[in-house]
Amino acid sequence: MSDNQTMIEGRNAVLEAFRSGKTIDRLYVLDGCKDGPVQTILREARKQDVILNFVAKERLDQMSETGHHQGVIAQTAAYGYASVEDILENARRKGEPPFVILLDGIEDPHNLGAVIRTANQAGAHGVIIPKRRAVGLTGTVARTSAGALNYTPVAKVTNLTAAIEQLKKEGLWFVCADMAGELMYDLNLTGPIGLVVGGEGDGVSKLVKENCDMAARIPMKGDIDSLNASVAAGVLAYEIVRQRLHANK
Amino acid sequence: MSDNQTMIEGRNAVLEAFRSGKTIDRLYVLDGCKDGPVQTILREARKQDVILNFVAKERLDQMSETGHHQGVIAQTAAYGYASVEDILENARRKGEPPFVILLDGIEDPHNLGAVIRTANQAGAHGVIIPKRRAVGLTGTVARTSAGALNYTPVAKVTNLTAAIEQLKKEGLWFVCADMAGELMYDLNLTGPIGLVVGGEGDGVSKLVKENCDMAARIPMKGDIDSLNASVAAGVLAYEIVRQRLHANK
Repeated sequence: MSDNQTMIEGRNAVLEAFRSGKTIDRLYVLDGCKDGPVQTILREARKQDVILNFVAKERLDQMSETGHHQGVIAQTAAYGYASVEDILENARRKGEPPFVILLDGIEDPHNLGAVIRTANQAGAHGVIIPKRRAVGLTGTVARTSAGALNYTPVAKVTNLTAAIEQLKKEGLWFVCADMAGELMYDLNLTGPIGLVVGGEGDGVSKLVKENCDMAARIPMKGDIDSLNASVAAGVLAYEIVRQRLHANK
Repeated sequence: MSDNQTMIEGRNAVLEAFRSGKTIDRLYVLDGCKDGPVQTILREARKQDVILNFVAKERLDQMSETGHHQGVIAQTAAYGYASVEDILENARRKGEPPFVILLDGIEDPHNLGAVIRTANQAGAHGVIIPKRRAVGLTGTVARTSAGALNYTPVAKVTNLTAAIEQLKKEGLWFVCADMAGELMYDLNLTGPIGLVVGGEGDGVSKLVKENCDMAARIPMKGDIDSLNASVAAGVLAYEIVRQRLHANK
């Protein structure tokens, strides 16, 4: 696999890649596999003149990065990173106040995939991740995003604080997840907003936190420290959704 | 490893197991590993007269079920399943209206662990899972629950519908996650409640859905089908938290 190519694995992810118009170079299908979902994928592949390879299970297992290929692997140009400007343009095109999710050091690809999926469903215009100490757009991320990666732009930046500064000039307010913050229901999250969620271990870093305008606390009644990072991102993103829906009534 | 024993892996999970008073039979620690978190674990282990084994990385890797032992593996009696009655008793003891999360066919251990963690933080009194076509309390579940499994009872039932019937007699109302349901903000979720969330593939099964009193829809603006199961459970659980907080004002 060359550097500018990536594998998309699993039926939903491959089908979504076709439907979103992504350029697929080659499709590997488990030889003899003929059930409905695979037939649908093959139909899409033939429509787009994709090179088809029917291969043995051993070959697919060997190619698979995630271990969950479900009999189909598509080889495609690597998931391109968007720019911060692309994300703003996405909001402008939809005529909506920008809503961006920034992840400060998420290292688990399942969590990143789940957040991209949440961003798509919650109507966020994009996700921003840092270059260092964080997972990038791998095959596992693509698969756990369940196709959302084809629709929701993800930008990778050298410096999260600089990205925040850039977006503040565009009128965005920043709220970070913080257990010492204000109860999320008591904050006004209806305007152009950047939601910052920290990684699995340490949460949002001090420097990034200092650059945020608000700190939001999810109420926690439990005996342990925190929520899973992708669940915390989901709960906060949907508090923004709720407030925006309510503000429009 | 005998049938009635299980491995707890990773620093947070092991430390939480000690602190929650779980009986640990034996602790395996990476030889030469002396950083702060490991010292804290060793202190707890010595306090409780746990048998200590300092072993090579290869040995830990071989023992590990999750691949993420972080240098510590504790061997303990298997995570016991609670009964549905234990969950009700948990609510009674806290003097709160029961709040139970039921999972209809979650197969991914990361998702089950994340939901148990969410249940703990959202103040749910327990989690109910079915015996068939679902993951049980494995090492990966314990680890991704980040210790919540030590506090939040999990019951395993033969028949989810029968458990719902039993809990209805105790005054619980049931709401299931359903994309064709009513917008979650428009439902009254403040009373004694069971929240039913479906698995990664098919959502809540027809029979279980028919036994629920309400169907709740999370607003989705996206291009894909659904949210990650543990994120959906988190968003709905926190809508219950929000309504309960509001009702108490």
